Amino acid sequence: MPALTLAEIADKIGGEVVGDGNLIITGTAEIDKAADGEITFLANSKYRPYLDNSQASAVIIDGQTSDPPAIPHIVTKDAYFAFLQTFMLYYEPVRILPIGIHPSAVIEESAVIGKDAAIGANVYIGPNVRIGDRCQIFPNCVILNDCEIGDDCLFYPLVSIRERCRIGDRAIIHNGAVIGSDGFGFAPYQGKFHKIPQVGVVVIGDDVEIGANVTIDRATMGETVVKSGVKLDNLVHLAHNVVVGENSVFAGQAGVAGSGRIGKNVMVGGQVAIVGHLTVGDGVRIAGKSGITKSIPDGETVYGVPARPIGRAKRIEAAMANLPEMQKRIRALEKKLEKLGEE
Amino acid sequence: MPALTLAEIADKIGGEVVGDGNLIITGTAEIDKAADGEITFLANSKYRPYLDNSQASAVIIDGQTSDPPAIPHIVTKDAYFAFLQTFMLYYEPVRILPIGIHPSAVIEESAVIGKDAAIGANVYIGPNVRIGDRCQIFPNCVILNDCEIGDDCLFYPLVSIRERCRIGDRAIIHNGAVIGSDGFGFAPYQGKFHKIPQVGVVVIGDDVEIGANVTIDRATMGETVVKSGVKLDNLVHLAHNVVVGENSVFAGQAGVAGSGRIGKNVMVGGQVAIVGHLTVGDGVRIAGKSGITKSIPDGETVYGVPARPIGRAKRIEAAMANLPEMQKRIRALEKKLEKLGEE
Amino acid sequence: MPALTLAEIADKIGGEVVGDGNLIITGTAEIDKAADGEITFLANSKYRPYLDNSQASAVIIDGQTSDPPAIPHIVTKDAYFAFLQTFMLYYEPVRILPIGIHPSAVIEESAVIGKDAAIGANVYIGPNVRIGDRCQIFPNCVILNDCEIGDDCLFYPLVSIRERCRIGDRAIIHNGAVIGSDGFGFAPYQGKFHKIPQVGVVVIGDDVEIGANVTIDRATMGETVVKSGVKLDNLVHLAHNVVVGENSVFAGQAGVAGSGRIGKNVMVGGQVAIVGHLTVGDGVRIAGKSGITKSIPDGETVYGVPARPIGRAKRIEAAMANLPEMQKRIRALEKKLEKLGEE
Repeated sequence: MPALTLAEIADKIGGEVVGDGNLIITGTAEIDKAADGEITFLANSKYRPYLDNSQASAVIIDGQTSDPPAIPHIVTKDAYFAFLQTFMLYYEPVRILPIGIHPSAVIEESAVIGKDAAIGANVYIGPNVRIGDRCQIFPNCVILNDCEIGDDCLFYPLVSIRERCRIGDRAIIHNGAVIGSDGFGFAPYQGKFHKIPQVGVVVIGDDVEIGANVTIDRATMGETVVKSGVKLDNLVHLAHNVVVGENSVFAGQAGVAGSGRIGKNVMVGGQVAIVGHLTVGDGVRIAGKSGITKSIPDGETVYGVPARPIGRAKRIEAAMANLPEMQKRIRALEKKLEKLGEE
Repeated sequence: MPALTLAEIADKIGGEVVGDGNLIITGTAEIDKAADGEITFLANSKYRPYLDNSQASAVIIDGQTSDPPAIPHIVTKDAYFAFLQTFMLYYEPVRILPIGIHPSAVIEESAVIGKDAAIGANVYIGPNVRIGDRCQIFPNCVILNDCEIGDDCLFYPLVSIRERCRIGDRAIIHNGAVIGSDGFGFAPYQGKFHKIPQVGVVVIGDDVEIGANVTIDRATMGETVVKSGVKLDNLVHLAHNVVVGENSVFAGQAGVAGSGRIGKNVMVGGQVAIVGHLTVGDGVRIAGKSGITKSIPDGETVYGVPARPIGRAKRIEAAMANLPEMQKRIRALEKKLEKLGEE
Repeated sequence: MPALTLAEIADKIGGEVVGDGNLIITGTAEIDKAADGEITFLANSKYRPYLDNSQASAVIIDGQTSDPPAIPHIVTKDAYFAFLQTFMLYYEPVRILPIGIHPSAVIEESAVIGKDAAIGANVYIGPNVRIGDRCQIFPNCVILNDCEIGDDCLFYPLVSIRERCRIGDRAIIHNGAVIGSDGFGFAPYQGKFHKIPQVGVVVIGDDVEIGANVTIDRATMGETVVKSGVKLDNLVHLAHNVVVGENSVFAGQAGVAGSGRIGKNVMVGGQVAIVGHLTVGDGVRIAGKSGITKSIPDGETVYGVPARPIGRAKRIEAAMANLPEMQKRIRALEKKLEKLGEE
């Protein structure tokens, strides 16, 4: 690990030093775990009291921090993000897969592997697949024919990608994720379900991260689309013909049914279900476990089954907590009124 | 792609031509995407207005279509299914896996592979396994000992099947699906859980489709059964000793706990949970995100947590939307009555 | 299968024979399936009537059984657990994987494989991995560098474990489970999500069972911990930095968000979601489909979205069932009162 001075860090993360810029900083740590020589951060005034007991030698704060700390600090616009940048200065990712193709990997002759790519043991890469430069494909992944994978992608073990799918640059796909499985499409006829061929593909943009055991179905016709910057947590399910806009984020075990259109900058909570053919607007936030049964306009925050604007949903939830008493009060009113009627 | 005349299509799908039977049809497309030369369909009168602006050269309708179109058409009993049949006339599935056994596959000597089967790279097939004719087993699948797989099955990459399970003809199993994992059975004793050996198997009928990363546990004793024609979407979970009747359909992320009995022709929505040991009758429909805590008689449609007949559930849901106002109205009534009492 | 006398069984399971101890018992079966020569059990008085029609030659009961059976029996402290122990006397687990390393497995030179371990076809084991004695690693599993696996572990096909994770003795991990995938951590900055490196690990205790296609994320920093005796059903998701205490049990498709602290002896129902950073106390029980939005004290049983103590939750649920009528009763009260006011 490198040692940097406080001034060097401030220079790299675009902040201003207050105190001794020549202080040697040996690493980063959270406020309650930092040791002598380390730098920490304060992004939330709630944690201000921790600072006085912290062993950290310096701290990153943002302009909004009232009561600036006694120890040397760096003032930034966004203390948390600046800390993350600082962390990255000390972070040296360990290269696990050696560059080159493991002799046990099976690569069809017509596949093209980019330069400095690493292909692990027992990987299968089908005909006409193109793998970009510097990709790392871990052991036992399977990429079927005619897929196009961009540069600098990282596929962990046992990822599988069906034929003809396209993935942009810098994708990170975690173990067991499935891209391009058939959409769930059947025509009911005379009591049986007849398979509708799923001839479309999945198209994934740049800088997408896909969690472990996620499933993304190919389109019935056309494309299932996951745009650039999208992040999907583990066990998320995207059905055929779904479109997810730029920089949207799905927490674990959420699912979108067929042909759902999810806008950009959307945040979807864990175990949320979104019914098919709906539109979720840009910037929408959906609280965990919600069920989306109607399209949602841009910018809305919703919650519940069925989901409603969060303020309304919370009022309903609060009233629901009183339901047994409401029932008693109605009974009491009925009795009183009966009595009044008898008088 | 073949070119067929309208009369040839009508003949193959069992419909009646109205207009020029010699019209050459080059393909199929949806009503708003069809180009000149293509045939489309109209199954829902809601889409009738689209037809006037469609570039399609012909259309498949059913007998119930009022206001028959001006362009040549085929009258059928079920326009959607007839269209699907027409689509299949033009659809040529691409054969991906070459027939034969990839040299990197590991097949135990006692396994029997049917004729014209295709076994991909890095597949493992255990002792005494029988694989039917024309099966396609994609790379990195694992089939343990004594399994029996019918004819014409299609297992996508990374499917795994534990020992002694049996699968019928024409099964399609998607990437990462697991058949025959241990049931979740433990005996609590003195604060610890002691594993109950799961010695049963999974038995799957004909024409079953199983989605990506689905898990189907083997029976504790006896059989977990998935009958013919069942379709399971991605990430569905069937526990030990579950029985699913013919032609039932499960949407994504639904789950059935141990020993659940699901009838035939049942439709289960996404993220539904069915408690163990219950019986869900034939033809039942369960709306998405429902929680089934009681057995359900044949033919019922249910919704909610806990699930209730849909009409009742919808009335409860509608009343719930008014809960904050109900609470205010009760308060208002109490005040009025108090005032009346004071008078 | 061995044949044992009733007295021999009683001796091994610590019970007392009533009746002919020399009776030969050939196997075990459930009360309604037992045949002549077999022993069954009666743990729940509800099933007492079945005993009279059972073909079983003997039965295991516990001290609390009123109305002791006419046939020879063994009196124990816990009839069900004693039956399970008896079952194990007759159960001979079939060894599937032969001891040794399959020639197609890829084992990096610096890995250490314990004695009498079995490594299946197409397995990949990375540098510096240590696999304990008598482990069985089924085909196509992947274990990345620097992992430590204890003795007597059983990894079914297609299990994958990322670098540096540690697993105790006797773990059973089912097909497709993923241990050590990256935590879902991103810093939002200027409309994009920037990956926070996930440099921690997963640490799993002894006697843990992990279901098919489960995902357990590594810690952002430090450790995600699954303590000894924990059992996770299929498709469970544990996020980064979660800690699960000893002997806790999760049913299928449940999920815990980042940094959740789950106590020991906790029972989590199917499809439960637990919000991040909460503490669930020891011995807590969470009913299926609940959503946990607050920390829960030791010993509580909770249910609902949001989860509440079960008694209160059930009262709310009961009142909810009457909501449409409550609404009508309020309307009726309002009308009556209006009429009274007019008088």
